[in-house]
Formats: sequence, C-alpha cells, structure tokens
Amino acid sequence: MKITGFTTDTGIQIGRIEGDMIVPLGPIAGFWDDPAKATESAAPVPLSAVTLCPAIPRTGKVICIGLNYRAHAEEAGMAIPTTPVVFSRWTETLVADGEPSPVSGAAYDWEAELGVVIGRKTRAADAASALESVFGYCTFNDLSNRALQLETAQWTLGKNIDRSGPVGAIVSADEAGNPAEGWQVICDVNGERVQSGNTADFIFTVPEIIACVSRQMTLNPGDLIITGTPAGVGMGMKPQRYLKPGDVVRVEVQGLGAVTTPITA
Amino acid sequence: MKITGFTTDTGIQIGRIEGDMIVPLGPIAGFWDDPAKATESAAPVPLSAVTLCPAIPRTGKVICIGLNYRAHAEEAGMAIPTTPVVFSRWTETLVADGEPSPVSGAAYDWEAELGVVIGRKTRAADAASALESVFGYCTFNDLSNRALQLETAQWTLGKNIDRSGPVGAIVSADEAGNPAEGWQVICDVNGERVQSGNTADFIFTVPEIIACVSRQMTLNPGDLIITGTPAGVGMGMKPQRYLKPGDVVRVEVQGLGAVTTPITA
Repeated sequence: MKITGFTTDTGIQIGRIEGDMIVPLGPIAGFWDDPAKATESAAPVPLSAVTLCPAIPRTGKVICIGLNYRAHAEEAGMAIPTTPVVFSRWTETLVADGEPSPVSGAAYDWEAELGVVIGRKTRAADAASALESVFGYCTFNDLSNRALQLETAQWTLGKNIDRSGPVGAIVSADEAGNPAEGWQVICDVNGERVQSGNTADFIFTVPEIIACVSRQMTLNPGDLIITGTPAGVGMGMKPQRYLKPGDVVRVEVQGLGAVTTPITA
Repeated sequence: MKITGFTTDTGIQIGRIEGDMIVPLGPIAGFWDDPAKATESAAPVPLSAVTLCPAIPRTGKVICIGLNYRAHAEEAGMAIPTTPVVFSRWTETLVADGEPSPVSGAAYDWEAELGVVIGRKTRAADAASALESVFGYCTFNDLSNRALQLETAQWTLGKNIDRSGPVGAIVSADEAGNPAEGWQVICDVNGERVQSGNTADFIFTVPEIIACVSRQMTLNPGDLIITGTPAGVGMGMKPQRYLKPGDVVRVEVQGLGAVTTPITA
C-alpha cells in the first residue's frame, strides 16, 4: 500500500492512496502505534478533496546519513566515510509533495534521497534481520542551506530550515521491494536533470544503517532514515549553482513516486 | 513557579511543585499549547506519590549549543567559535532527575548545562527582545559518548544515546531571573567537584542564541535549548576519565536545583 498524511478538522490522519481516492486509516498517532493493525476508519474520499501533509509523526525522528555515495563525498570535498555519518532533522521541517519551500539564503541546494520509514520498535538490530523493521520507503529532498551547514563544524542549522524537508508518500516494503536491487534516485531543477544516482551505489546499505543507529538509540514506528544523496548537488557544480525563487525542484526514487517543490521568496 | 512532568494512567501531565506537593496543570500537550493560560486542573497530590518525568514534550526540539565556554573549547582541543555551533538531540533521549542512565561504551562523559525552555512561538527574534520568548530555565546533563561523538565529523550519534539526557524541573523566568546575572554551573561525580563554571562566561548569551536559531527555524513552546558546558569534562582530564556503572553524576545550575543520575550497566 501507499500512504500519506492528510489534514482534517480533528487533526492529521493517515490515508491509503488507491488511484484517485484516499482510504482513511485513522489519526496519525494511532496509526504509528502499530501500523500492522491499521484498518479502514471511514469511507474513501477523493484525493483531490483533501490537503496532503507528511505521514511522519511529529514525535518521530528524521535520522540523516551523510556522504553515502562515493561520488557525492568527492564532489563535496569530504573524506569517504568508514562508518555512517549521522546528522539530524526535526520532523517539523517536513512538507508534503507540492508544498513550497521558501529559499534560504544564497546557497540553498537540492539533495534527492531515498527515505526509509521504520515500522516497529527496534533496538540493536543486526544487519541480517534489520529490513524486518522497515515499514516502507519514500522519496525525500534534503534541502540544505550550504552556508549555514558549513559555517560551523556541525551541519544541524543548515539542515533544519523551516519547510526544507519535502517528503513523499510512503510505499510499503512488500510493494516497494528492496533498495539493494538498485533504485534510480534523480533530481530535476526546472526540468533539467541534475542528479542521477542509484541505491545500488550506497556506501552503507539500509540494513547496515539500521544496525548502526539502533545500537545507540531506539527506533520507533514512524521514524524516518534518509540515506544520503548522490552526486550532482549545486555545491559540487563549477561554477556552483543554487536555488532561487521561481525554481521548481523535482526528486524521484524509482518505484516510489516524485516530490515536486516550488521554491518561493 | 517550578514545573515538572509526571506520569498518570491517562498519560503525562504537567504539575507545579509546591513544597512536597504537586499541583496538576493538565496534560502535557495542552500545557505547552499556551503555558501562560495553564490553570490548576485537579487537587494537589504528594510529590512522593507520583513518578516524575521530563516536562519537555515529545514533539519538542532539544537544540544544543557546543563550545559555549572558552575554557571548555580549549580543553576539547577545538577552535573558539565565532558563531553558535548548533547540534541536536531528540526529546526521547530525556530522563528525569533520579532516573538511571546506562553507561554507553568506554568514553561516557558528563556535561553540566543550563537549559532554556521556550514559552511562545518564536520566529526571527532579535536579541534585544529574545528573552521574552523564554518560559523558564532548568538544569541539564548532556551525557555524551565521546567515541561515537568524534568517530565522524557529526556529533549526533554520540549525543543521542537512549536515556542520556537528564533534565530537571523548569523554573519560570520570573522566578529564576536572568542567566546574564551569572549562575554557577557545577557537576559532581561521586561527590567530587569536576565542573564549576558560570553562565556569565558564555561566549554566546541566551538572547544571542535564540536570535541565531530562530532566524532559521521556528521555536515552539516546550522547545529546549541547552547552552553548552563549562570546562571540566572527563575528556579534558589527563588522564581522561569516564563514567562507569555505579557512578553517580550530580549537576546543578544555581537557583534551578540539582539533577542526579545513577550510571548503570
């Protein structure tokens, strides 16, 4: 199944997308208490009649992996990591497909990524079984203010700009398959292809990342791990190229759908 | 007033501490919707009859400032920052005064800090008025796995160990006063004084930090900013000294009360 958040008078609900309809599955907090038990909570409504929002709960974590494609680490002028580089986003930075993101400074950059959504409480998973903790996968755009990201040694400020985390609907793992099969990860800016990577080129695989992170902190249903971006960001171009108001960024991971973000003033 | 979280059959509530009693102020989410409007929601109960928990909401952010005391930056062998160094914790790492923290690896270290709790939605505050956004202040212990913190360029993993964020009750700003007056920040390990700093020695003041962070991201009621630790951490000792099971760490900020944490296996 493919799920999204949508807003209602009584708060955010989760819905299953079926063609041009959405099947309500109940309030977001209850859904993530145990996604395996989710059932239809109301009659389907047209997708066009609701306002979409991220399906990731506000109580969740967005765990970000940096430099997970060799060519991107090289274009960023950073060392190839020997252990996953973990940084963070707060969930309130997330926006849905189609929502605008206001430009942040003169060095606002795109990053197409695969997102991995956790489906059950996970502590100290081993890599062999870590995929059992995955609820599903989504497309993500890790929009970054490079000036702020690199102004100090810690990237947090440049990675947590308000509305800088466009996230797509979540495709359950049973439908999406396994990213080790090799899923294309692309980004288009104003229709021009700027990134074209493949999850087969990860330095650290999804199971390795889940094992690494869950050794230190408990993962909960609804937590999102974003797995790094391939080469082709604006910072790596010569000359460097950054987003400006009026630009449209479209990211897509093969099989998961696209996320389009208008950049506004 | 001084507030804490406490657990009930129906979820976490906020309570005002008055001597050895606690005056319930209602569910945590409603309290942080507008702390200024909080009123007594039930009859007082003895403090000894409830289980305390952090008053910071799970939906909040813990915004951490690194290297905010000159002598600590020097002992850590890091450059004196010219702009606030921002990193992050997720709120689920928080524990209350008296709760144990399991030792994490062979380099688990203490960090006594002043915590600043936001009281109203704040975006792009100027430093002159930023203190108006503060609800109150608390004592914090930013327990850190140094090996993980420094294994990659990003500190996130070593700063988000499960149960590594002991946080005290929150004293409202009208009672606590202004940290610019100079509040002592101390840490004792097994009764031995290891840190003794003063908030008058901040490189970046609380208003400067709020202004810097709120230019990039909206601050919400219940968000917690921890303001960095003074010199005297275990990493800076010769030889280095780290926490082991059986140790007891006690941190205190003048006027805000102590937070004691048994280190367990």
